Amino acid sequence: MGDSRPIGVFDSGLGGLTVAKEIFRLMPSERIIYLGDTARVPYGGKSEETIRRFGLQDARALLDLDVKLLVVACNTVSSVAIDYLERHIKGIPVIGVVLPGARAAATRSAEKRIGVVGTAATVRSMSYARAIHNIDPNIKVYGKPCPLFVPLVEEGLIDSDITRLAVQHYLYEMVDLGIDCLILGCTHYPILMEVIQSTVGNGIQLIDSALWTAKEAQNIMKALGIESAAPSEQREAAGGGVRNSVVDNAGGGLAASRFLGSDVTPNFEAVAEALLGARLPSIEKVPVEELEEKEKIKRF
Amino acid sequence: MGDSRPIGVFDSGLGGLTVAKEIFRLMPSERIIYLGDTARVPYGGKSEETIRRFGLQDARALLDLDVKLLVVACNTVSSVAIDYLERHIKGIPVIGVVLPGARAAATRSAEKRIGVVGTAATVRSMSYARAIHNIDPNIKVYGKPCPLFVPLVEEGLIDSDITRLAVQHYLYEMVDLGIDCLILGCTHYPILMEVIQSTVGNGIQLIDSALWTAKEAQNIMKALGIESAAPSEQREAAGGGVRNSVVDNAGGGLAASRFLGSDVTPNFEAVAEALLGARLPSIEKVPVEELEEKEKIKRF
Repeated sequence: MGDSRPIGVFDSGLGGLTVAKEIFRLMPSERIIYLGDTARVPYGGKSEETIRRFGLQDARALLDLDVKLLVVACNTVSSVAIDYLERHIKGIPVIGVVLPGARAAATRSAEKRIGVVGTAATVRSMSYARAIHNIDPNIKVYGKPCPLFVPLVEEGLIDSDITRLAVQHYLYEMVDLGIDCLILGCTHYPILMEVIQSTVGNGIQLIDSALWTAKEAQNIMKALGIESAAPSEQREAAGGGVRNSVVDNAGGGLAASRFLGSDVTPNFEAVAEALLGARLPSIEKVPVEELEEKEKIKRF
Repeated sequence: MGDSRPIGVFDSGLGGLTVAKEIFRLMPSERIIYLGDTARVPYGGKSEETIRRFGLQDARALLDLDVKLLVVACNTVSSVAIDYLERHIKGIPVIGVVLPGARAAATRSAEKRIGVVGTAATVRSMSYARAIHNIDPNIKVYGKPCPLFVPLVEEGLIDSDITRLAVQHYLYEMVDLGIDCLILGCTHYPILMEVIQSTVGNGIQLIDSALWTAKEAQNIMKALGIESAAPSEQREAAGGGVRNSVVDNAGGGLAASRFLGSDVTPNFEAVAEALLGARLPSIEKVPVEELEEKEKIKRF
């Protein structure tokens, strides 16, 4: 009756919690093991080689914890290293955030003009443009890196004139280009959705990659038959309608999930709560050298 | 005739180049080996344990390159790990940026009210307050973390309304507190000197730690007799007034120095040029795993 193993979700830091949030909302029976590489965050300004190495280390750390599906909840890694990860991670499906977001935008843009905002590495990689052009080569795609958005979110400056000015600074050209869809190509950006929407106006539809990635995860798990049994089925399997602690532990959701970080930074809990919309049940530390070992073991 | 070995300077990223710049200006005969941990930058939001570990790895990488003096050109590492580094680095003097900046401010504040701006880790550590109180316990010290300043500098938004608003956002309380000295406790901040000065007004003196750290390095090297011989003396030592390539190579300054980074990021050169006020002669990559090895070799 289904596959009770957890879903592995990783990000360079805590931004991927917006993807975890959507997975919990769509699939309340699923458990997640989340890994945030908080000791080496952010990845967005680093070189492709470094992003690939760090991404593979993160992925292998989750693979060792027996996850059934790997969600790369980091736009930067999804943009520059998803093929690399797919080549190196065997036995379980790997999904990134780029393809689901690109597909959602391509099917919604009547004007065939789509904007993409993200980190420097994401925009430079042209990953969204390539994914969109695979669907429809006639769509024009305009990218703009917005490196201030992540620190603004992490500073809690959501409803601030500084943020409004920064959004205008980055997006005024986008509006002039006549786009009708704007992909939020960084997992931190959904937190800024209101200020972005009010700046670009209601004529531009915002595409939240986190949401579409959760939907993609659900579709793939359905297709492969690796969804977790729903709580009612679990109760039946455990011998009738009486809930017991084993069944509760086998259940899904936030309380049954694990959250790992390579550094437990002082503002970890506050930032995590803002992104997840709930308090983390607990935080486990995975030393960064353990992540590095994941690579060495396989390489030498 | 002096000590021709280079000075080792390290930072979490490229900010420490403002210290290198002041060293070149004050001591044109000196060579520098600069190490920026650009693969793991920034350190400012990380835990103390992680900052200590990364800092020691950086320091040992420079020690292995036979430097005569170690300058910790990173306020975050200087704030939380300078004692730790002094205990673990033997044989050469180690200087941080906190003590020189604190001393300069303490001797200049007539009102005995000093402000300190820096990363979250620097301000939380109370390092400047402790250093100032060792000089004069009656001075009041007010700290304010300004996490947006580094990304603003790295985005090149020096003369921008976003930066002016951010400076106001962080500093308006400082002005109300009646400080007469403000320590720029992060090596990126001197780049924002003009906008900070115009925001806080001319009644508040800005203390640039980079400048005072270079002066401290000069004083220590004089006291220990480890200054590099001046070019004229070098020429004499090499047999008269004729310059030859050996003498030129043994000379100091930017062209004779080395610049190492743990990641050569796409905007490395542009950011480095803004901070150093000159183009880097070359960039050498030190893989991050080599930095980690520095710790393992000594620990196990």
